[in-house]
Amino acid sequence: MSALTQPDAATARAYPNIALVKYWGKRDESLILPVAGSLSLTLDAFATTTTVEVLDSLATDEFSLNGAAQIGDSLGRVTKFLDLVRAMAGSTQHASVTSINEAPTGAGLASSASGFAALAVAASAAYGLDLDRAALSRLARRGSGSAARSLIDGISVWHAGTSDETSFAEPVEAPEMSMIIVTVDSRQKAVSSRAAMRRTALTSPFYPAWAPSTEQSLAAMLEACRDRDFSRIGRITETHALRMHALIQSADPPIRYLSPVSIAIFDAVAALRDAGVEAYATADAGPNVAVISRPEDAAAVAEALAQYGAVRVVGAGSGATLIDPTDTDASPAEGTA
Amino acid sequence: MSALTQPDAATARAYPNIALVKYWGKRDESLILPVAGSLSLTLDAFATTTTVEVLDSLATDEFSLNGAAQIGDSLGRVTKFLDLVRAMAGSTQHASVTSINEAPTGAGLASSASGFAALAVAASAAYGLDLDRAALSRLARRGSGSAARSLIDGISVWHAGTSDETSFAEPVEAPEMSMIIVTVDSRQKAVSSRAAMRRTALTSPFYPAWAPSTEQSLAAMLEACRDRDFSRIGRITETHALRMHALIQSADPPIRYLSPVSIAIFDAVAALRDAGVEAYATADAGPNVAVISRPEDAAAVAEALAQYGAVRVVGAGSGATLIDPTDTDASPAEGTA
Repeated sequence: MSALTQPDAATARAYPNIALVKYWGKRDESLILPVAGSLSLTLDAFATTTTVEVLDSLATDEFSLNGAAQIGDSLGRVTKFLDLVRAMAGSTQHASVTSINEAPTGAGLASSASGFAALAVAASAAYGLDLDRAALSRLARRGSGSAARSLIDGISVWHAGTSDETSFAEPVEAPEMSMIIVTVDSRQKAVSSRAAMRRTALTSPFYPAWAPSTEQSLAAMLEACRDRDFSRIGRITETHALRMHALIQSADPPIRYLSPVSIAIFDAVAALRDAGVEAYATADAGPNVAVISRPEDAAAVAEALAQYGAVRVVGAGSGATLIDPTDTDASPAEGTA
Repeated sequence: MSALTQPDAATARAYPNIALVKYWGKRDESLILPVAGSLSLTLDAFATTTTVEVLDSLATDEFSLNGAAQIGDSLGRVTKFLDLVRAMAGSTQHASVTSINEAPTGAGLASSASGFAALAVAASAAYGLDLDRAALSRLARRGSGSAARSLIDGISVWHAGTSDETSFAEPVEAPEMSMIIVTVDSRQKAVSSRAAMRRTALTSPFYPAWAPSTEQSLAAMLEACRDRDFSRIGRITETHALRMHALIQSADPPIRYLSPVSIAIFDAVAALRDAGVEAYATADAGPNVAVISRPEDAAAVAEALAQYGAVRVVGAGSGATLIDPTDTDASPAEGTA
C-alpha cells in the first residue's frame, strides 16, 4: 500500500479487550444481543490495524489478514459485515479490506473484538457514514459481540439492552489497573467460542442460571468500580471467570478450555494473594490467563508468572479510532506480536 | 488385640466406593438425605477394617485410627454414630473402636465411606442388632452419606428417598469394568467436602439446577447399566463428574479441587479415546482421578497414566461384611497401602 490513500479509503486501529464480567451467550443470534451485560478493559497492546478501500473496480469484497488473502468463512464474515455498512450508506460498491493483527488468532485473546472494532470504524468512514461512539459500538457488535467494547477507552460496560438500539458499550470510571497476560498456547482452540456458546445454551443444566448470575456480578462490579475498590473488583473478576468456565465445562459433551498450565497459573495467583500481592485471574475461551493487579504490583506479578508462558504487561488502551496511515507507527510490520 | 475376641465384639471390613453419578448436596443435614440419588462402584482395594468392642469398663468411647488414638472431631463423629446404634439397641455401654484404613485419608478417596460402612456393620453386631442390608445401608448413611453405598457389592444405586426409611443403597446389574485410580496427591485437601457442599448450596447460582440434573444423569445411567452399554456409562460418568466440579468451582469464593495434574489426566484420557481405547475419567472432592475402562483395556490405561501419579487398578469389591479377626488376611499390618 502506498502512503497516498484512495479518496474512499480509511484506516482504523483497535485493541482487544479482556472482560472482567464475561459475555457468554446470545439471546438474538442475528443481531448479536447478549443474554447479559458485560464489562471489560480495552488493552493498549495486540492492535489490529485495518484499512478499507471502497473501489468501483471490485466485483466482490476482498480481505487480506496479515498479508494472506482470506476466503471462505473468514471472508464471508467480513462481507456480511460490509453488507450492513453498505445498507446504512446506500452503497453497492465492494471494498478491499487489509488488516494487520498483532495478536495470535484464535487463542482466546479475542482478536475478533479488535478486528471488528477496527473494521467498523474504517468501513463506516470509507463508506462516508458519520456515526457516534454508541452507533459505532452497535455496528461493531454485529461483527462480533465483544467488539462493541473495543470502541471504548479503558474500562467499559456493554449494556445487554433489549434491541439493536439499546445494546452498546460506554465508558465506566474505575481505578487504574494493570493486566498481566500469560500466553500459554497460541494454537487454534479446539471448539470456537461461537460453537461453545451454542452447545452450552443447548445442553448445560446450568445455563438458565447464567444470565441472572452475570447481571448480578455486573451490578456488583459497577458498584466496586464506582467505589474504586480494587480488591472487590478482583474478587468478582476471578469468581465470575471461574463460573463461566464452570458453565462451559457443564456442557454435553463437556468443553474444557483451561489447560493444566492455566490451572497452575490460577494456583500461582492464589499463592501471590496469600503472600500479600493482590492479583486476580481471568480467562476467556482458551487456555491463556489474564491477571489484574494494581499498577505498582504488575512487575512482581509478571515475574512470578513468567515460568508459565509468554508474559506481557498491558494497561488501559484507546477505543477504536481512525488513524493516519502515513504515520509509520500506524503501519507495523507484518508478523510483529 | 489378641486373637480371642471379646463376647461383645465384632470386626468388619468395608471398601471405599467411587461414584459414577455423584452425591453432592444434602436436603437434610441431620439425617443425611441427599438432594439426588447416586450410583457407584464399591472397590476391591483400600479396605477399612474396624473392630468394635463394647466394654462395661469404659466411661467414654475410644477410637483408634491406624494406631493413633483419636480426639476432637474425629472421635466426636464416631461417638455420635455409636449413639445412634446404642439408641437402636437400648444400650448405654461405651465401646472401643479400632480401625485400620488402607487408603490415604482426606485425599478424595472417600475413606469416610469405607470407615462408616465398616463401623455400621461392626457396631451393630457388637451391640447385638440384627439388621438387613438396607437397614445397614441406612445406618452407615448417618455417618457419612456415601457410606450407604459401601454396604453393597460392586455397582450400587443410592436412592435419594424422602425419609430415613427410603434413603438406602441396593445393587445394580452392570457390565464388568475396571477402575484405574491415579493418586495425584495424598495431602489433606484444603476444603472438606462437607464445607464445600455447604458453600456450593449457599453461594452457587447453579445449585438449584444440580439436583434435577443429577437425577437425569442417574436415570440415563441406570438405563445404560441395564443395556450393558459401557460406552454410554463412560460418557455419562465423565460429563457428570465435570459438572460436579463445575458446580463446586462456581461457589463464592470458588473451590477448585482439580489440580494441573488432574486436568492433564483428563486430557490424557481424552487422548486415549482418540486413540481407540475407551476410558472415561471421574474425580471426587480432591485432585485424584479415577478412570473406568473395560477390564481388557485396564493395563493399557494404567500404563498411559503412570506418569501422572501412583496408579492402581481395582475392580468390583464386596459390600461391608463381618469378618473373622483371627483370619490373618483380615488383619493387615498397619500402614499398608
